Amino acid sequence: MTHVKVGIVGLGLMGGSLSLALKKLPEDYYFIGLDHNELHCTQALKLGLVDEITYSLETLKSCDIIFLSIPVDGIITIVKQLGSLDPKCTVIDLGSTKEKISLSIPSNIRHNFVTAHPMTGTEKFGPTAALENLYSDKVVVLCDMQKSGEYQDKVSKELFSAIGMNIVCMGAKEHDRHAAFISHMPHALSYALANSVMKQEASESIIDLAGGGFRDMSRIAKSSPNMWEDIFRQNKFNVLEAIHTLQSELKKCEKLVENDEWHALNKWMTDANTLHDIL
Amino acid sequence: MTHVKVGIVGLGLMGGSLSLALKKLPEDYYFIGLDHNELHCTQALKLGLVDEITYSLETLKSCDIIFLSIPVDGIITIVKQLGSLDPKCTVIDLGSTKEKISLSIPSNIRHNFVTAHPMTGTEKFGPTAALENLYSDKVVVLCDMQKSGEYQDKVSKELFSAIGMNIVCMGAKEHDRHAAFISHMPHALSYALANSVMKQEASESIIDLAGGGFRDMSRIAKSSPNMWEDIFRQNKFNVLEAIHTLQSELKKCEKLVENDEWHALNKWMTDANTLHDIL
Repeated sequence: MTHVKVGIVGLGLMGGSLSLALKKLPEDYYFIGLDHNELHCTQALKLGLVDEITYSLETLKSCDIIFLSIPVDGIITIVKQLGSLDPKCTVIDLGSTKEKISLSIPSNIRHNFVTAHPMTGTEKFGPTAALENLYSDKVVVLCDMQKSGEYQDKVSKELFSAIGMNIVCMGAKEHDRHAAFISHMPHALSYALANSVMKQEASESIIDLAGGGFRDMSRIAKSSPNMWEDIFRQNKFNVLEAIHTLQSELKKCEKLVENDEWHALNKWMTDANTLHDIL
Repeated sequence: MTHVKVGIVGLGLMGGSLSLALKKLPEDYYFIGLDHNELHCTQALKLGLVDEITYSLETLKSCDIIFLSIPVDGIITIVKQLGSLDPKCTVIDLGSTKEKISLSIPSNIRHNFVTAHPMTGTEKFGPTAALENLYSDKVVVLCDMQKSGEYQDKVSKELFSAIGMNIVCMGAKEHDRHAAFISHMPHALSYALANSVMKQEASESIIDLAGGGFRDMSRIAKSSPNMWEDIFRQNKFNVLEAIHTLQSELKKCEKLVENDEWHALNKWMTDANTLHDIL
């Protein structure tokens, strides 16, 4: 019986959940994991997320499909170490930024690559955070697909569809600008909110009063600083633009409150309500 | 068979959910509703949230317990219209601000009042938004309780405990400052986030990529502008202070990204992570 060999570099929430999602499909997959974190390797084996652990890039390169589910700077590092690849090998990176990654791939193996960003996640991390349904009914953005091989295009789209994802294609540059507004800046905001409350003298009595609104808004402030440091670095200028836009909206609100312009404040909030006609 | 007559002024999410919560208790309650919105009156009757609708303050004043679950400016208006009350009548307001309401109650009926803020809600409104479990396992803040009568203190605490709430007591002034940080400013932030994205030229393609983080952070931007206009007005100075604190945290983040201070940015995010050790 032949099986599809799947390599997973990075056995955290994203990589682990991918294994769980693929295991539900009728295909027979064999999973080879690679991770610098030894505890994560042990946990992934124990949880059955992978069949084998390797520390060798050559073993990894023997896989039919390789997922790179590590922080975005790490993706660029490993991409440069791969050397040559079998023409039928498909490498799919799951990084939250796409332009620098797309540009970093050597031209001799560019067709092997599919640069993808699944718009899903939780604030948790590590193999124990893996969820069977993390990917189902979520959007995955595939970028610069004209640079991927026809075979890799087909393999990746079939795979993402099979695990229930909705595929959106766009350029890596456009993706990074969109992601700054819909994901990266909101993370900065959530971290800022958490710090605003934590630095109050009465922080514990304030937090005792937390209802659902605050819990929801501060949830992603629990996300991994190492992962987000990389994202903010790689998408620096888009993130700054999105932060400036948010600052200017918040300044508007501040001024309306300060100047008792209640009617205009009401209008400003009514404008915000319209988001939910389309979301 | 005697029943407890409960008046509910404001048949929206909070008032309607209160009726559903009380109906689960063994006591026999009879609900009299009052609302300026005729559609809400019809819906509340149809949904069985109230047994009777009244437009008369005198009928309302015949109740044993009266809940005021309307926007905070409306609470102050009705408080001034009540005139005298039976010494055993308990009036509980559920406003999100407390100091102006507490101070607005005429001294001759001050002992009748309990000023409460249940730290719960959803972004939805109207009687159809009512939820049976909205109050269970949530915090309710009772303010300036030394000004409430002994009888009203007992009635209100028994009632909130019976519907599964955790009672926290503090001064109205302290409450308003805390609420600005944990609830009011986060609402301003969510509205600002929604507007930041909606005002982008490519807003629809950006929103197509929304994952759980953005959905959670923009959820309360759907809240009622009329309700929140009142809250921002009544708690203006605390809200401004909380907005300034948030602005200063976000400015820190912006400068760290701008100046490539990645190590310090990582530390700033790690500080934010600690929120979740206590929440």
